[in-house]
Amino acid sequence: MRKVEIIGYGYYVPSETVEFDGQIRHRIPEGSSETQLSMAVTAAKNALSKAAIDINEIDCIVATSAVGIQPIPCNAALIHEQIAKGTSIPAMDINTTCTSFIAAVDAISYLIDAGRYNKVLIVASEKASLGLNPKQKESYELFGDGAAALILSKCEDGSAGVIYGKQNTWSEGAHDTEIRGGLTNYLPKYYVEGTEEYFFDMNGLKVLRLAGKKLPKFFEDFQKESGYTVNDIDMIIPHQASKALSMIMSRLGIPKDKYIDIVPEYGNMVSVAIPHAFMWAIDHGKIKKGDTVLLIGTAAGLTASAVLLKY
Amino acid sequence: MRKVEIIGYGYYVPSETVEFDGQIRHRIPEGSSETQLSMAVTAAKNALSKAAIDINEIDCIVATSAVGIQPIPCNAALIHEQIAKGTSIPAMDINTTCTSFIAAVDAISYLIDAGRYNKVLIVASEKASLGLNPKQKESYELFGDGAAALILSKCEDGSAGVIYGKQNTWSEGAHDTEIRGGLTNYLPKYYVEGTEEYFFDMNGLKVLRLAGKKLPKFFEDFQKESGYTVNDIDMIIPHQASKALSMIMSRLGIPKDKYIDIVPEYGNMVSVAIPHAFMWAIDHGKIKKGDTVLLIGTAAGLTASAVLLKY
Repeated sequence: MRKVEIIGYGYYVPSETVEFDGQIRHRIPEGSSETQLSMAVTAAKNALSKAAIDINEIDCIVATSAVGIQPIPCNAALIHEQIAKGTSIPAMDINTTCTSFIAAVDAISYLIDAGRYNKVLIVASEKASLGLNPKQKESYELFGDGAAALILSKCEDGSAGVIYGKQNTWSEGAHDTEIRGGLTNYLPKYYVEGTEEYFFDMNGLKVLRLAGKKLPKFFEDFQKESGYTVNDIDMIIPHQASKALSMIMSRLGIPKDKYIDIVPEYGNMVSVAIPHAFMWAIDHGKIKKGDTVLLIGTAAGLTASAVLLKY
Repeated sequence: MRKVEIIGYGYYVPSETVEFDGQIRHRIPEGSSETQLSMAVTAAKNALSKAAIDINEIDCIVATSAVGIQPIPCNAALIHEQIAKGTSIPAMDINTTCTSFIAAVDAISYLIDAGRYNKVLIVASEKASLGLNPKQKESYELFGDGAAALILSKCEDGSAGVIYGKQNTWSEGAHDTEIRGGLTNYLPKYYVEGTEEYFFDMNGLKVLRLAGKKLPKFFEDFQKESGYTVNDIDMIIPHQASKALSMIMSRLGIPKDKYIDIVPEYGNMVSVAIPHAFMWAIDHGKIKKGDTVLLIGTAAGLTASAVLLKY
């Protein structure tokens, strides 16, 4: 076990909502001054406040959004400017799209365990509503905006930590979930009114099929390799990928009371969905100190990531 | 020392060049089918071939470009699709802009040393020429295109490794080097002919001033913390940031024969500059097995990163 503990967390979800068939999505309304960056800053400040520490105690800022704020510099540097200007705290981005937060907790736990850093602030933030295509009903009605931040710290007494982490990527799904335009593949200058190249483009059925094919083996391997079965895990935080969540969970043999499903209330908040659902579960008494918690999800790639924590 | 060794490397630089006052820049000409992705693929294949291993022996693909190919998915997943389709090798991006390659070698060395991965392919690729603003003479004449890839492997006998790594970010420089447009900050749909928001924007003088103020202390701290002085280091690979490289090196007390300066031949290849100069130095006999090598540079952020290797 890599000895790390969560000493603070915070999130931000816009209060404004839209509704589709009774499913609530929190989205920043057009014309609001809230941005991907401002939400990240609020979440980060909430996490620092919960941990009751000052930014100067942070040794590294890691941003884990799927989508960037600007092509240059990285998101973490822009967040740094808002909360850590005047310090020399290193800033870096880690990206595996929707599961970036898992990838960061997993990777950073090695650095903390080895003594490189003591306290790391991990921040995800997404303004998904900006990229939605009204012509794609499924994704248009699925996504939500928000941000979540967590402070991972060395756990001196070894009572908490990362038990096991795993990632796989199957790139036959690389184009099932994508935004093609905006960077070097399709430059902004090729934008013409009505083009869909700059919108989020998801083939939900193909993603579901590929995930359905790959996830059971991934989860089986995870249990074998980690030595933890579903029975040994107190709570599972799946990526809030879609309304098909319960179907996927049942396919993985995970009983209803063992996982968090807040898709009806929040939808898919991209890279924020996993940390937000995790924090929601803690705040709602579904996870307590000492519990064994599994964060697991799929991401554009197609990537599957999972990290097992002793909270 | 984190026991890792470089078992293969490869790069790709377009053969087409432009010249400014005798300074050569390699750039993909307009209309060519070469892309940021195709260059990454060539570099990765060259690295695999040099290591004489098959992609199936790779445990993780890490992309370290400053700029993305698409907003979603991450660069590593798109590279995976070209060289690793059909495998389940995990793919992730690590980004600190120009020093992303250092950040990745530094972070991944912890994962390899701890036994998480055995062989990791790290790939940087940049088509900088796409983002240059003809109205900004300094940056317009500075940048070049290319890609570089390296395979980091567990070093069983402990003869090679990462001795020390360090990063600092000073976000008072966050806007001295940036591309503002293309993602959530300025969406592609706001593109209008003649706008400069989607171009690379560098205030070279401000960057130089801030780097000049911060780097000497960073380098002094690095030497103290690592226990290695300039005299103990065989070769230094600085980021090929600009024509002011020799000025910066002399300010850091690094003698002319101790560092690589190929700015006149290649310019600044963004995140590719450091790994490319490193590989260039090996190929030109400036670095041999067992040498102590320092990779060091600044990046948009402003970030400074350094990693000391026993090659």
